[in-house]
Amino acid sequence: MIDIFSKRSAFATNPIREEDTAAEHLEREGTHVIRLNTGDPAVYMPTPRYIIDAYVRALQEGRTSYSRSEGIVALADAVAHRYSRMYGVDFGGDAVVVTQGISEGLGIINSALIDEGDRACIFRPYYPAYMTNLRLAGGETVRCGYNEDSGWSIDTDEVEKALGQAGGVIKYMLITNPNNPTGTVLGRDVLSELVDIANDHELLIMSDEIYDEIVFNGASFTSIAQLARGVPHVILNGVSKNFDATGFRIGFIVVPEQDETSLALRQKFLDYVRVRLSANTPAEYACAEALNNVAEHTRATKAMVAEIQDRVNYSVDLLEENEYMSVVRPEGAFYAFPRLDLSSLAFQSDTEFVRGLLDEEHVQITRGSGFGEPSHIRLVCLPPKEILGDAINRINSFCSRHAR
Amino acid sequence: MIDIFSKRSAFATNPIREEDTAAEHLEREGTHVIRLNTGDPAVYMPTPRYIIDAYVRALQEGRTSYSRSEGIVALADAVAHRYSRMYGVDFGGDAVVVTQGISEGLGIINSALIDEGDRACIFRPYYPAYMTNLRLAGGETVRCGYNEDSGWSIDTDEVEKALGQAGGVIKYMLITNPNNPTGTVLGRDVLSELVDIANDHELLIMSDEIYDEIVFNGASFTSIAQLARGVPHVILNGVSKNFDATGFRIGFIVVPEQDETSLALRQKFLDYVRVRLSANTPAEYACAEALNNVAEHTRATKAMVAEIQDRVNYSVDLLEENEYMSVVRPEGAFYAFPRLDLSSLAFQSDTEFVRGLLDEEHVQITRGSGFGEPSHIRLVCLPPKEILGDAINRINSFCSRHAR
Repeated sequence: MIDIFSKRSAFATNPIREEDTAAEHLEREGTHVIRLNTGDPAVYMPTPRYIIDAYVRALQEGRTSYSRSEGIVALADAVAHRYSRMYGVDFGGDAVVVTQGISEGLGIINSALIDEGDRACIFRPYYPAYMTNLRLAGGETVRCGYNEDSGWSIDTDEVEKALGQAGGVIKYMLITNPNNPTGTVLGRDVLSELVDIANDHELLIMSDEIYDEIVFNGASFTSIAQLARGVPHVILNGVSKNFDATGFRIGFIVVPEQDETSLALRQKFLDYVRVRLSANTPAEYACAEALNNVAEHTRATKAMVAEIQDRVNYSVDLLEENEYMSVVRPEGAFYAFPRLDLSSLAFQSDTEFVRGLLDEEHVQITRGSGFGEPSHIRLVCLPPKEILGDAINRINSFCSRHAR
Repeated sequence: MIDIFSKRSAFATNPIREEDTAAEHLEREGTHVIRLNTGDPAVYMPTPRYIIDAYVRALQEGRTSYSRSEGIVALADAVAHRYSRMYGVDFGGDAVVVTQGISEGLGIINSALIDEGDRACIFRPYYPAYMTNLRLAGGETVRCGYNEDSGWSIDTDEVEKALGQAGGVIKYMLITNPNNPTGTVLGRDVLSELVDIANDHELLIMSDEIYDEIVFNGASFTSIAQLARGVPHVILNGVSKNFDATGFRIGFIVVPEQDETSLALRQKFLDYVRVRLSANTPAEYACAEALNNVAEHTRATKAMVAEIQDRVNYSVDLLEENEYMSVVRPEGAFYAFPRLDLSSLAFQSDTEFVRGLLDEEHVQITRGSGFGEPSHIRLVCLPPKEILGDAINRINSFCSRHAR
């Protein structure tokens, strides 16, 4: 009965967590592992007190039954208010579907849109779950991406060309802004051009904006909601990063417009979330407060983003001293994504590098090939600087030891 | 762009919640709706205090980051201990994968096992999400079911016959015990025969035992884990019903055995849950305490099950007075699933009946056709007796008013 698995199940992997079992083995043997693989601010920066208090209050008040499938009204409305407040875009709570993190949203979106052989435009390097969920639904990607040589920018002429050559049915264009793993914050001009291209090709625009408040080094963020007025688009967001509440598993699918396609999308997403009844109910109440208490949130986020900017820049500074790699300084999110110079290192691939580093230096990072970009590595720059410094020193000495 | 949806997305519906929007409209207009559609004990019986306290403690202690994808070690171990304690079956925490409710587990299992056109043996009437998730994965069912005339029993000869006639690849047999919606508790003999049949046909055995402690009216429960020793099987369970904690969204996939297939299943399920990072972390801590604190749990469950038995029997007694329907008295779970005598009622279908009842009497129930069993209705028997009595009186007068 060993051959019982579906063909597509081979795609169900997450490169970010693929070394977790190996890391746990080391830890059980008493070895301390510095884990720089999962982008989880709550490990090092406690979730703000006012959010915890709201969560506790919801539990004390007995908010423990299933909720509305699409999310409690208070949270859906809070998400709508956030977009009005931050981006001047007005829509009602009925434009919002609460999901168990963006992860669940990606599964729903791909199941809802992708038939076997359909394509989606996903820019390389990408967050791995985009590709996993697309492939689990039977879909394939259009080859387009960021250009590292020009600081991980997007060349829209190349996107046009890729879409023209792709063939088949292309269902959506997925933009991640700020990008994971590169930390790129897309400018208003590029975004506008991407919206135009998606429109010309009749692609649904999807924008993952989970890091929209974690922008620094002078960059400024534009939401797709500000640019795609009047055309159907879908925004993915949630509390994990901006609100430092990863373990709550609360995300949002937002469909701001009112055209026929957008209304059909809202209904379809509602149909899907009803199948699983609801998200975590007390967490939904906590998140309504998280979003509505603007004063507390502004204070908490300002401090968090300043800290993240400091840690990211510190990491990049240290990585720049490493002659075996090169790195573009990020403007958002909290990762560093250096390119390995494999011609000067005794490794065949980023995968070998990452495994060796865990074995020898007990630092867990993620291989760039997992993001569709071989010969790179992704480091999470969230720990305090002494830990980041220790980890990057280990990486640097690991490189020196394995120089070709 | 309106025609953007995948073909399979048409299967993404949940009959249990399909009237929620209509019910909300009524409520917004100031009409009180008695909702007997969702099987949610936490609405009427507060989640036990000791579980809430553990949840609050987890939050106070800062357990808000992502957890291990397969669930925190303490919870996985607690699940293993529960099976050892209750059923004398010994396995380690590595046999357990924590999911966001059984709902998520069903999605994973079907994606992992079902290729387009594969079949699964799911007994009618079934919990709707079994069929939804099977169909979303491209699968089809084998026609087999419970026999209402003999008190919703399973005739294993008929199962043999159905499997023999089905053709194609049949991947698994899914048993629900106790059953939702019929409340059937399967006896040890029938279960043993089903295990033998599954073995003969090389089907993976899957057993949803989410109501395994909610058994009454003299019935006794046998876990598949007690009968399927030495052969690969998968158990689905969680805290929603037995622990009265629906809104936590914590379920378990358990693969007790150690054969090659079982180990491959564990790894595959782990691969899948890593894609979505983790379940709700503080809820996992609360659930570890929920399962480990046997004294508190025993006290809480005993009271809850006595109350449920009372409410179910009260409902059935009242329904038996209705000459337009007949009902088999349940032995587990908390539903009543009467057959409508449509020859004596002015309705074409259970769907018409359910819609009319919501419109005219403001009682929300679920159509039997949603469970694969037309001409039936499902009522949740969890509210206090005065509410149940009110609802069933409305149903009875609705029937009299619409007698043919």
